[in-house]
Amino acid sequence: MLSGGLDSSTVLYQAKSDGCECYAISFDYQQRHRRELISAAFVAEKVGVVEHQVVRFDLGLWGGSALTDDKIDVPVERSLGEMGESIPVTYVPARNTIFLSFALAYAEAIGAKRVYIGVNALDYSGYPDCRPDYIEAMQEVFRLGTKEGREGDEIKIVAPLIDLKKTEIILLGNKLGVPWEKTWSCYAGEDVACGVCDSCLLRLAAFEELGLTDSLPYAKGK
Amino acid sequence: MLSGGLDSSTVLYQAKSDGCECYAISFDYQQRHRRELISAAFVAEKVGVVEHQVVRFDLGLWGGSALTDDKIDVPVERSLGEMGESIPVTYVPARNTIFLSFALAYAEAIGAKRVYIGVNALDYSGYPDCRPDYIEAMQEVFRLGTKEGREGDEIKIVAPLIDLKKTEIILLGNKLGVPWEKTWSCYAGEDVACGVCDSCLLRLAAFEELGLTDSLPYAKGK
Repeated sequence: MLSGGLDSSTVLYQAKSDGCECYAISFDYQQRHRRELISAAFVAEKVGVVEHQVVRFDLGLWGGSALTDDKIDVPVERSLGEMGESIPVTYVPARNTIFLSFALAYAEAIGAKRVYIGVNALDYSGYPDCRPDYIEAMQEVFRLGTKEGREGDEIKIVAPLIDLKKTEIILLGNKLGVPWEKTWSCYAGEDVACGVCDSCLLRLAAFEELGLTDSLPYAKGK
Repeated sequence: MLSGGLDSSTVLYQAKSDGCECYAISFDYQQRHRRELISAAFVAEKVGVVEHQVVRFDLGLWGGSALTDDKIDVPVERSLGEMGESIPVTYVPARNTIFLSFALAYAEAIGAKRVYIGVNALDYSGYPDCRPDYIEAMQEVFRLGTKEGREGDEIKIVAPLIDLKKTEIILLGNKLGVPWEKTWSCYAGEDVACGVCDSCLLRLAAFEELGLTDSLPYAKGK
């Protein structure tokens, strides 16, 4: 599952490093930051996936998130403390459930044995659908909701970043050779990363904590 | 969740009868029998839903089912015994998981408390994602994967047909006033129901067992 961001790009490199023959799936859900799909295509090509599917649907039909509804602003210049206080407006209802469902369908159709997903501990504080118990619940759906699962050979969800901090993900990605300058994390929907939305700030703070420079250009900030 | 078929139409009438303010969601997934969406629109209008969303995506991207891949024929003229032998080629990988995920997103976005789905005991024999333990696993995803669920107020999956036989569903639908002639069950993808695919045969057999006549016209059969 490849959004083109820092986390999912690292996960794709990890899957390749694990010896997997990789098939990538991305989602064009009318997100404000559809720019990320260009990054996803680049990273998929770079890793040499067998196939890259982009599934299109419109989560703007019912809105409910700053990422799919132009009338809700993406928060900017928040402190990490403010971000952790409650589930942010950038939360998209059931997004990971929808994404994992399509990944499951694709995996079952092509006979894949694993679905790699880049959920991680930093998201943990905010989004309900990034937590370990949620992933376990989806694993049970993978087991009971498919032909293979019913036969005791269920497709496994692999979430290698789930217990990692953003800094640890960056160190892992550096080891694996992830081209950060070609990834995309910004929520703002412009052609250059804003540097001030929650996603940019979390990413930049992690690079700063490590004393490293993010090779992606930003409009504002470091 | 309204496909426009016999089961989901009965479920919508049941939800209305339960006193719900109803929002319908249907899926245009490039299914061979997209004709069902005309029935869904009719039934939604007839019941008087507040809103009817049709979510569009393409499950033909990776095929894997006779319903989404023109190269795989829909089986015809099978006996009920043959249908029960194994998971049929009309099984669409992860379809109900995808549908329930979108329904969850829609429900969370509009603040709905229940998601009604027309899975039932007859499907039980064939499709893995129609069984009670699967629905329970999805309920756990509804609980852990959403804001409301995390706060102890999860959206409930209601599957009123799950333990019913097709004949019992028809009796229930008759009581509720479901206009059978406006529903659509056929898989074949023509403008008139074929009468010989598994779906038509199951439906016709149930009407016959009850000594009733299905008011929907068929090309072949009773």
